Amino acid sequence: MTKKAVVLVSGGLDSATTLAIAKDQGYDCYAVSFNYGQRHLVELESAKAVASAMGAIEHKVVHLGLDDIGGSALTDENIAVPQNIDENISAHIPVTYVPARNTVFLSLALGWAEVLDAEAIFIGVNAVDYSGYPDCRPEYIDAFQGMANLATKKGVEGQLIKIETPLIHLTKAEIIQKGSELGVDYAQTLSCYAPDAEGRACGRCDSCRLRKQGFEAANVADPTVYSAL
Amino acid sequence: MTKKAVVLVSGGLDSATTLAIAKDQGYDCYAVSFNYGQRHLVELESAKAVASAMGAIEHKVVHLGLDDIGGSALTDENIAVPQNIDENISAHIPVTYVPARNTVFLSLALGWAEVLDAEAIFIGVNAVDYSGYPDCRPEYIDAFQGMANLATKKGVEGQLIKIETPLIHLTKAEIIQKGSELGVDYAQTLSCYAPDAEGRACGRCDSCRLRKQGFEAANVADPTVYSAL
Repeated sequence: MTKKAVVLVSGGLDSATTLAIAKDQGYDCYAVSFNYGQRHLVELESAKAVASAMGAIEHKVVHLGLDDIGGSALTDENIAVPQNIDENISAHIPVTYVPARNTVFLSLALGWAEVLDAEAIFIGVNAVDYSGYPDCRPEYIDAFQGMANLATKKGVEGQLIKIETPLIHLTKAEIIQKGSELGVDYAQTLSCYAPDAEGRACGRCDSCRLRKQGFEAANVADPTVYSAL
Repeated sequence: MTKKAVVLVSGGLDSATTLAIAKDQGYDCYAVSFNYGQRHLVELESAKAVASAMGAIEHKVVHLGLDDIGGSALTDENIAVPQNIDENISAHIPVTYVPARNTVFLSLALGWAEVLDAEAIFIGVNAVDYSGYPDCRPEYIDAFQGMANLATKKGVEGQLIKIETPLIHLTKAEIIQKGSELGVDYAQTLSCYAPDAEGRACGRCDSCRLRKQGFEAANVADPTVYSAL
Protein backbone atom coordinates (compact mmCIF):
# COMPACT_ATOMS: atom_id res chain seq x y z
CA MET A 1 0.00 0.00 0.00
CA THR A 2 1.66 3.21 -1.13
CA LYS A 3 1.16 6.50 0.65
CA LYS A 4 1.30 9.76 -1.24
CA ALA A 5 2.56 13.21 -0.34
CA VAL A 6 2.51 16.52 -2.14
CA VAL A 7 5.87 18.26 -1.63
CA LEU A 8 6.44 21.96 -2.28
CA VAL A 9 9.70 22.28 -4.20
CA SER A 10 11.08 25.75 -4.88
CA GLY A 11 14.50 24.90 -6.25
CA GLY A 12 16.14 25.93 -2.97
CA LEU A 13 18.14 24.02 -0.40
CA ASP A 14 15.36 23.68 2.18
CA SER A 15 12.72 22.23 -0.10
CA ALA A 16 15.22 19.79 -1.68
CA THR A 17 15.97 18.49 1.82
CA THR A 18 12.26 18.30 2.60
CA LEU A 19 11.66 16.21 -0.52
CA ALA A 20 14.47 13.84 0.51
CA ILE A 21 12.92 13.49 3.98
CA ALA A 22 9.45 12.74 2.57
CA LYS A 23 10.92 10.11 0.28
CA ASP A 24 12.93 8.63 3.18
CA GLN A 25 9.67 8.34 5.15
CA GLY A 26 8.29 6.09 2.41
CA TYR A 27 6.03 8.50 0.56
CA ASP A 28 5.43 8.52 -3.16
CA CYS A 29 6.22 12.18 -3.75
CA TYR A 30 4.31 14.57 -6.02
CA ALA A 31 6.39 17.73 -6.37
CA VAL A 32 4.76 21.08 -7.02
CA SER A 33 6.39 24.40 -7.89
CA PHE A 34 4.88 27.78 -8.64
CA ASN A 35 5.56 30.17 -11.46
CA TYR A 36 4.39 33.30 -9.66
CA GLY A 37 6.21 36.12 -11.37
CA GLN A 38 9.39 35.61 -9.37
CA ARG A 39 12.22 37.47 -11.04
CA HIS A 40 14.34 34.38 -11.55
CA LEU A 41 12.78 31.53 -13.48
CA VAL A 42 16.11 29.71 -13.08
CA GLU A 43 14.64 28.63 -9.71
CA LEU A 44 12.13 26.51 -11.60
CA GLU A 45 14.96 24.80 -13.49
CA SER A 46 16.53 23.92 -10.15
CA ALA A 47 13.17 22.64 -8.90
CA LYS A 48 12.84 20.42 -11.95
CA ALA A 49 16.34 18.99 -11.48
CA VAL A 50 15.75 18.35 -7.78
CA ALA A 51 12.37 16.65 -8.34
CA SER A 52 13.86 14.42 -10.99
CA ALA A 53 16.97 13.50 -8.98
CA MET A 54 14.84 12.62 -5.94
CA GLY A 55 12.50 10.36 -7.92
CA ALA A 56 9.30 12.40 -7.65
CA ILE A 57 6.42 10.59 -9.39
CA GLU A 58 5.33 13.85 -10.99
CA HIS A 59 6.43 17.49 -10.97
CA LYS A 60 3.76 20.10 -11.58
CA VAL A 61 4.48 23.79 -12.19
CA VAL A 62 1.36 25.82 -11.43
CA HIS A 63 1.09 29.29 -12.94
CA LEU A 64 -0.03 31.89 -10.45
CA GLY A 65 -0.65 35.60 -10.96
CA LEU A 66 1.12 36.81 -7.80
CA ASP A 67 3.00 39.35 -9.93
CA ASP A 68 -0.36 41.09 -10.41
CA ILE A 69 -0.50 41.58 -6.64
CA GLY A 70 3.03 42.87 -6.08
CA GLY A 71 4.41 44.07 -2.76
CA SER A 72 7.71 42.17 -2.50
CA ALA A 73 11.27 42.63 -3.68
CA LEU A 74 11.08 39.08 -5.04
CA THR A 75 8.29 39.86 -7.48
CA ASP A 76 8.25 43.64 -7.85
CA GLU A 77 10.96 45.27 -9.95
CA ASN A 78 10.40 48.54 -8.08
CA ILE A 79 11.65 47.18 -4.73
CA ALA A 80 15.39 46.50 -4.41
CA VAL A 81 16.68 43.23 -2.93
CA PRO A 82 18.72 44.14 0.16
CA GLN A 83 22.37 43.04 0.33
CA ASN A 84 24.83 42.99 3.22
CA ILE A 85 22.45 44.54 5.73
CA ASP A 86 23.00 42.56 8.89
CA GLU A 87 19.98 43.83 10.77
CA ASN A 88 17.74 42.70 7.95
CA ILE A 89 18.02 39.08 9.07
CA SER A 90 15.37 38.14 11.61
CA ALA A 91 15.21 41.64 13.10
CA HIS A 92 11.95 42.47 11.34
CA ILE A 93 9.84 41.28 8.44
CA PRO A 94 12.10 41.60 5.39
CA VAL A 95 11.04 43.31 2.16
CA THR A 96 11.53 39.96 0.45
CA TYR A 97 8.35 38.78 2.22
CA VAL A 98 5.71 37.91 -0.41
CA PRO A 99 2.20 38.66 0.90
CA ALA A 100 0.40 35.46 1.89
CA ARG A 101 2.76 33.37 -0.21
CA ASN A 102 2.89 30.22 1.91
CA THR A 103 -0.87 30.42 2.40
CA VAL A 104 -1.42 30.51 -1.35
CA PHE A 105 1.11 27.74 -2.00
CA LEU A 106 -0.27 25.48 0.75
CA SER A 107 -3.84 26.08 -0.47
CA LEU A 108 -2.98 24.94 -3.98
CA ALA A 109 -1.06 21.96 -2.57
CA LEU A 110 -4.15 21.13 -0.51
CA GLY A 111 -6.31 21.08 -3.63
CA TRP A 112 -3.89 18.77 -5.42
CA ALA A 113 -3.53 16.55 -2.33
CA GLU A 114 -7.28 16.10 -2.26
CA VAL A 115 -7.41 15.15 -5.94
CA LEU A 116 -4.50 12.71 -5.51
CA ASP A 117 -5.93 11.27 -2.29
CA ALA A 118 -2.62 12.12 -0.60
CA GLU A 119 -2.09 11.80 3.14
CA ALA A 120 0.36 14.63 3.62
CA ILE A 121 1.75 17.91 2.34
CA PHE A 122 5.44 18.60 3.00
CA ILE A 123 6.71 22.18 3.14
CA GLY A 124 10.25 23.25 4.02
CA VAL A 125 9.42 26.21 6.24
CA ASN A 126 11.91 27.08 8.90
CA ALA A 127 11.35 29.18 11.99
CA VAL A 128 15.00 29.40 13.03
CA ASP A 129 16.87 31.23 10.29
CA TYR A 130 13.88 33.05 8.75
CA SER A 131 11.88 34.10 11.75
CA GLY A 132 11.00 37.40 10.08
CA TYR A 133 8.35 35.69 7.95
CA PRO A 134 5.03 35.34 9.78
CA ASP A 135 4.00 32.37 7.64
CA CYS A 136 7.01 30.27 8.66
CA ARG A 137 6.04 30.01 12.35
CA PRO A 138 4.71 26.83 14.01
CA GLU A 139 1.57 28.64 15.21
CA TYR A 140 0.81 29.64 11.63
CA ILE A 141 1.23 26.05 10.41
CA ASP A 142 -1.04 24.78 13.21
CA ALA A 143 -3.71 27.31 12.21
CA PHE A 144 -3.41 26.32 8.55
CA GLN A 145 -3.84 22.65 9.55
CA GLY A 146 -7.01 23.49 11.49
CA MET A 147 -8.42 25.42 8.56
CA ALA A 148 -7.47 22.67 6.08
CA ASN A 149 -9.29 20.06 8.19
CA LEU A 150 -12.51 22.04 7.69
CA ALA A 151 -11.88 23.10 4.07
CA THR A 152 -11.82 19.80 2.27
CA LYS A 153 -14.12 17.00 1.29
CA LYS A 154 -11.56 14.56 2.72
CA GLY A 155 -11.48 16.47 5.99
CA VAL A 156 -15.29 16.45 6.24
CA GLU A 157 -15.18 12.69 5.71
CA GLY A 158 -12.66 12.35 8.55
CA GLN A 159 -9.56 11.80 6.43
CA LEU A 160 -7.19 14.60 7.32
CA ILE A 161 -4.31 15.78 5.16
CA LYS A 162 -1.35 16.35 7.46
CA ILE A 163 0.86 19.43 6.93
CA GLU A 164 4.41 18.19 7.55
CA THR A 165 7.21 20.67 8.33
CA PRO A 166 10.27 18.52 9.06
CA LEU A 167 12.70 21.48 8.98
CA ILE A 168 10.76 23.89 11.15
CA HIS A 169 13.04 23.72 14.20
CA LEU A 170 16.35 22.90 12.45
CA THR A 171 19.24 25.28 11.92
CA LYS A 172 20.58 25.70 8.38
CA ALA A 173 23.56 23.54 9.36
CA GLU A 174 21.30 20.76 10.64
CA ILE A 175 19.25 20.91 7.43
CA ILE A 176 22.41 20.54 5.34
CA GLN A 177 23.67 17.65 7.48
CA LYS A 178 20.33 15.83 7.20
CA GLY A 179 20.12 16.37 3.44
CA SER A 180 23.71 15.26 2.91
CA GLU A 181 22.96 12.00 4.76
CA LEU A 182 19.96 11.45 2.48
CA GLY A 183 21.97 12.08 -0.70
CA VAL A 184 20.73 15.52 -1.70
CA ASP A 185 22.93 17.07 -4.40
CA TYR A 186 22.98 20.69 -3.24
CA ALA A 187 24.79 21.75 -6.43
CA GLN A 188 21.35 21.43 -8.09
CA THR A 189 19.73 23.90 -5.69
CA LEU A 190 19.61 27.69 -5.83
CA SER A 191 19.04 29.93 -2.81
CA CYS A 192 20.16 33.31 -4.16
CA TYR A 193 17.73 36.25 -4.37
CA ALA A 194 19.74 37.80 -7.21
CA PRO A 195 21.44 35.20 -9.44
CA ASP A 196 23.27 36.30 -12.59
CA ALA A 197 22.19 35.49 -16.15
CA GLU A 198 23.85 32.06 -15.94
CA GLY A 199 21.95 31.25 -12.74
CA ARG A 200 25.03 31.63 -10.49
CA ALA A 201 24.46 32.81 -6.92
CA CYS A 202 25.63 36.30 -5.96
CA GLY A 203 27.17 35.19 -2.64
CA ARG A 204 26.13 38.44 -0.96
CA CYS A 205 22.36 38.55 -0.43
CA ASP A 206 20.79 37.43 2.86
CA SER A 207 19.85 34.07 1.41
CA CYS A 208 23.36 33.37 0.06
CA ARG A 209 24.90 34.38 3.38
CA LEU A 210 22.66 32.08 5.40
CA ARG A 211 23.45 29.27 3.00
CA LYS A 212 27.22 29.79 3.14
CA GLN A 213 27.19 30.02 6.93
CA GLY A 214 25.14 26.80 6.98
CA PHE A 215 27.69 24.81 4.96
CA GLU A 216 30.52 26.12 7.15
CA ALA A 217 28.69 25.28 10.38
CA ALA A 218 27.71 21.83 9.05
CA ASN A 219 31.30 21.17 8.04
CA VAL A 220 30.09 20.13 4.60
CA ALA A 221 31.84 21.30 1.42
CA ASP A 222 29.78 24.04 -0.26
CA PRO A 223 29.16 23.02 -3.91
CA THR A 224 27.61 26.38 -4.80
CA VAL A 225 29.16 28.32 -7.70
CA TYR A 226 29.18 31.99 -6.73
CA SER A 227 29.51 34.66 -9.41
CA ALA A 228 30.98 37.29 -7.09
CA LEU A 229 33.75 35.28 -5.43
CA MET B 1 -10.60 58.58 5.83
CA THR B 2 -11.46 55.87 3.33
CA LYS B 3 -11.58 52.21 4.22
CA LYS B 4 -10.72 49.56 1.66
CA ALA B 5 -12.07 46.09 1.02
CA VAL B 6 -11.08 43.36 -1.39
CA VAL B 7 -14.24 41.74 -2.78
CA LEU B 8 -14.28 38.37 -4.55
CA VAL B 9 -16.43 38.75 -7.66
CA SER B 10 -17.21 35.68 -9.74
CA GLY B 11 -19.80 37.04 -12.11
CA GLY B 12 -22.59 35.29 -10.21
CA LEU B 13 -25.58 36.58 -8.29
CA ASP B 14 -24.15 36.08 -4.80
CA SER B 15 -20.88 37.92 -5.33
CA ALA B 16 -22.64 40.83 -7.10
CA THR B 17 -24.84 41.21 -4.03
CA THR B 18 -21.80 40.97 -1.76
CA LEU B 19 -20.09 43.76 -3.69
CA ALA B 20 -23.20 45.94 -3.33
CA ILE B 21 -23.25 45.29 0.44
CA ALA B 22 -19.54 46.16 0.82
CA LYS B 23 -20.09 49.39 -1.09
CA ASP B 24 -23.19 50.18 1.00
CA GLN B 25 -21.06 49.75 4.14
CA GLY B 26 -18.82 52.55 2.92
CA TYR B 27 -15.85 50.58 1.61
CA ASP B 28 -13.76 51.50 -1.39
CA CYS B 29 -14.02 48.18 -3.20
CA TYR B 30 -11.23 46.35 -5.02
CA ALA B 31 -12.78 43.52 -7.00
CA VAL B 32 -10.86 40.36 -7.78
CA SER B 33 -11.79 37.49 -10.07
CA PHE B 34 -9.92 34.35 -10.99
CA ASN B 35 -9.22 32.80 -14.33
CA TYR B 36 -8.74 29.25 -13.10
CA GLY B 37 -9.52 27.09 -16.08
CA GLN B 38 -13.27 27.24 -15.54
CA ARG B 39 -15.06 26.05 -18.63
CA HIS B 40 -16.93 29.28 -19.16
CA LEU B 41 -14.88 32.43 -19.47
CA VAL B 42 -18.18 34.28 -20.01
CA GLU B 43 -18.30 34.35 -16.18
CA LEU B 44 -15.36 36.75 -16.25
CA GLU B 45 -17.24 39.06 -18.62
CA SER B 46 -20.10 39.13 -16.10
CA ALA B 47 -17.62 39.84 -13.30
CA LYS B 48 -16.19 42.75 -15.27
CA ALA B 49 -19.66 44.23 -15.92
CA VAL B 50 -20.68 43.83 -12.26
CA ALA B 51 -17.46 45.41 -10.92
CA SER B 52 -17.85 48.35 -13.27
CA ALA B 53 -21.56 48.89 -12.55
CA MET B 54 -20.92 48.81 -8.79
CA GLY B 55 -18.12 51.37 -8.97
CA ALA B 56 -15.20 49.16 -7.94
CA ILE B 57 -11.96 51.18 -7.79
CA GLU B 58 -10.13 48.40 -9.59
CA HIS B 59 -10.93 44.95 -10.98
CA LYS B 60 -8.12 42.43 -11.09
CA VAL B 61 -8.30 39.09 -12.88
CA VAL B 62 -5.67 36.74 -11.47
CA HIS B 63 -4.62 33.76 -13.57
CA LEU B 64 -4.46 30.55 -11.61
CA GLY B 65 -3.47 27.07 -12.75
CA LEU B 66 -6.33 25.19 -11.05
CA ASP B 67 -7.02 23.42 -14.34
CA ASP B 68 -3.66 21.65 -13.85
CA ILE B 69 -5.06 20.19 -10.63
CA GLY B 70 -8.44 19.01 -11.91
CA GLY B 71 -11.00 17.05 -9.92
CA SER B 72 -14.22 19.02 -10.55
CA ALA B 73 -16.95 19.08 -13.15
CA LEU B 74 -16.43 22.84 -13.36
CA THR B 75 -12.84 22.55 -14.55
CA ASP B 76 -12.46 18.99 -15.82
CA GLU B 77 -13.99 18.11 -19.19
CA ASN B 78 -14.07 14.45 -18.17
CA ILE B 79 -16.64 14.96 -15.40
CA ALA B 80 -20.22 15.76 -16.48
CA VAL B 81 -22.18 18.62 -14.89
CA PRO B 82 -25.27 17.07 -13.27
CA GLN B 83 -28.71 18.32 -14.32
CA ASN B 84 -32.12 17.75 -12.79
CA ILE B 85 -30.92 15.44 -10.05
CA ASP B 86 -32.81 16.56 -6.97
CA GLU B 87 -30.75 14.67 -4.44
CA ASN B 88 -27.61 16.36 -5.71
CA ILE B 89 -28.55 19.56 -3.88
CA SER B 90 -27.24 19.64 -0.33
CA ALA B 91 -27.51 15.86 0.10
CA HIS B 92 -23.75 15.34 -0.30
CA ILE B 93 -20.71 17.13 -1.65
CA PRO B 94 -21.50 17.76 -5.32
CA VAL B 95 -19.11 16.88 -8.15
CA THR B 96 -19.03 20.60 -8.97
CA TYR B 97 -16.93 21.10 -5.82
CA VAL B 98 -13.51 22.48 -6.81
CA PRO B 99 -10.79 21.22 -4.41
CA ALA B 100 -9.75 23.93 -1.97
CA ARG B 101 -11.17 26.64 -4.23
CA ASN B 102 -12.32 29.13 -1.61
CA THR B 103 -9.10 28.58 0.32
CA VAL B 104 -7.04 29.44 -2.74
CA PHE B 105 -9.23 32.45 -3.63
CA LEU B 106 -9.24 33.81 -0.07
CA SER B 107 -5.47 33.34 0.18
CA LEU B 108 -4.86 35.41 -2.93
CA ALA B 109 -7.35 38.03 -1.72
CA LEU B 110 -5.44 38.11 1.57
CA GLY B 111 -2.19 38.85 -0.24
CA TRP B 112 -3.78 41.67 -2.20
CA ALA B 113 -5.52 43.04 0.92
CA GLU B 114 -2.17 43.23 2.65
CA VAL B 115 -0.57 45.11 -0.25
CA LEU B 116 -3.55 47.51 -0.43
CA ASP B 117 -3.66 47.96 3.33
CA ALA B 118 -7.32 46.89 3.23
CA GLU B 119 -9.36 46.25 6.36
CA ALA B 120 -11.63 43.54 5.02
CA ILE B 121 -12.18 40.80 2.47
CA PHE B 122 -15.76 40.16 1.35
CA ILE B 123 -16.76 36.75 0.00
CA GLY B 124 -20.29 35.71 -0.97
CA VAL B 125 -20.27 32.22 0.53
CA ASN B 126 -23.59 30.85 1.60
CA ALA B 127 -24.25 27.97 3.96
CA VAL B 128 -27.99 27.70 3.32
CA ASP B 129 -28.46 26.77 -0.32
CA TYR B 130 -25.02 25.24 -0.93
CA SER B 131 -24.37 23.33 2.26
CA GLY B 132 -22.71 20.53 0.32
CA TYR B 133 -19.51 22.58 -0.01
CA PRO B 134 -17.23 22.23 3.04
CA ASP B 135 -15.58 25.60 2.36
CA CYS B 136 -18.87 27.56 2.58
CA ARG B 137 -19.53 26.77 6.26
CA PRO B 138 -19.18 29.32 9.09
CA GLU B 139 -16.71 27.08 10.97
CA TYR B 140 -14.49 27.01 7.89
CA ILE B 141 -14.57 30.81 7.59
CA ASP B 142 -13.74 31.17 11.30
CA ALA B 143 -10.76 28.85 10.86
CA PHE B 144 -9.58 30.78 7.82
CA GLN B 145 -9.82 34.02 9.82
CA GLY B 146 -7.69 32.53 12.61
CA MET B 147 -5.08 31.36 10.12
CA ALA B 148 -5.06 34.72 8.30
CA ASN B 149 -4.43 36.57 11.57
CA LEU B 150 -1.19 34.58 11.93
CA ALA B 151 -0.20 34.56 8.25
CA THR B 152 0.29 38.21 7.51
CA LYS B 153 2.63 41.04 8.33
CA LYS B 154 -0.43 43.16 9.17
CA GLY B 155 -1.75 40.46 11.49
CA VAL B 156 1.61 40.21 13.28
CA GLU B 157 1.51 43.97 13.75
CA GLY B 158 -1.97 43.68 15.28
CA GLN B 159 -3.94 44.95 12.31
CA LEU B 160 -6.30 42.17 11.37
CA ILE B 161 -7.95 41.76 7.99
CA LYS B 162 -11.56 40.77 8.63
CA ILE B 163 -13.16 38.08 6.46
CA GLU B 164 -16.72 39.31 5.85
CA THR B 165 -19.44 36.88 4.72
CA PRO B 166 -22.66 38.94 4.65
CA LEU B 167 -24.66 36.25 2.81
CA ILE B 168 -23.66 33.26 4.88
CA HIS B 169 -27.01 32.75 6.63
CA LEU B 170 -29.34 34.20 3.95
CA THR B 171 -31.61 32.20 1.67
CA LYS B 172 -31.34 32.80 -2.07
CA ALA B 173 -34.58 34.82 -1.89
CA GLU B 174 -33.22 37.02 0.90
CA ILE B 175 -30.02 37.60 -1.09
CA ILE B 176 -32.04 38.68 -4.13
CA GLN B 177 -34.23 40.99 -2.03
CA LYS B 178 -31.18 42.59 -0.42
CA GLY B 179 -29.40 43.07 -3.76
CA SER B 180 -32.52 44.50 -5.41
CA GLU B 181 -32.79 47.10 -2.62
CA LEU B 182 -29.14 48.04 -3.24
CA GLY B 183 -29.61 48.40 -7.00
CA VAL B 184 -27.88 45.27 -8.27
CA ASP B 185 -28.66 44.60 -11.92
CA TYR B 186 -28.99 40.81 -11.89
CA ALA B 187 -29.25 40.74 -15.69
CA GLN B 188 -25.46 41.27 -15.64
CA THR B 189 -24.86 38.17 -13.53
CA LEU B 190 -24.47 34.55 -14.59
CA SER B 191 -25.08 31.58 -12.31
CA CYS B 192 -25.36 28.75 -14.84
CA TYR B 193 -22.93 25.82 -14.80
CA ALA B 194 -23.50 25.18 -18.52
CA PRO B 195 -24.26 28.39 -20.48
CA ASP B 196 -24.56 28.25 -24.27
CA ALA B 197 -22.15 29.89 -26.71
CA GLU B 198 -23.93 33.26 -26.30
CA GLY B 199 -23.57 33.09 -22.51
CA ARG B 200 -27.27 32.32 -21.92
CA ALA B 201 -28.17 30.21 -18.90
CA CYS B 202 -29.43 26.65 -19.45
CA GLY B 203 -32.25 26.95 -16.92
CA ARG B 204 -31.84 23.32 -15.89
CA CYS B 205 -28.62 22.84 -13.90
CA ASP B 206 -28.63 22.96 -10.07
CA SER B 207 -27.34 26.52 -10.06
CA CYS B 208 -30.03 27.76 -12.50
CA ARG B 209 -32.75 26.00 -10.52
CA LEU B 210 -31.67 27.55 -7.22
CA ARG B 211 -31.56 30.96 -8.89
CA LYS B 212 -34.99 30.63 -10.47
CA GLN B 213 -36.53 29.42 -7.22
CA GLY B 214 -34.87 32.40 -5.49
CA PHE B 215 -36.44 35.00 -7.77
CA GLU B 216 -39.84 33.31 -7.37
CA ALA B 217 -39.58 33.18 -3.57
CA ALA B 218 -38.32 36.78 -3.42
CA ASN B 219 -41.21 37.90 -5.61
CA VAL B 220 -38.73 39.73 -7.84
CA ALA B 221 -38.95 39.54 -11.65
CA ASP B 222 -36.22 37.22 -12.99
CA PRO B 223 -34.21 39.13 -15.63
CA THR B 224 -32.26 36.02 -16.67
CA VAL B 225 -32.36 34.99 -20.33
CA TYR B 226 -32.58 31.22 -20.46
CA SER B 227 -31.62 29.36 -23.63
CA ALA B 228 -33.76 26.31 -22.91
CA LEU B 229 -37.07 27.96 -22.07
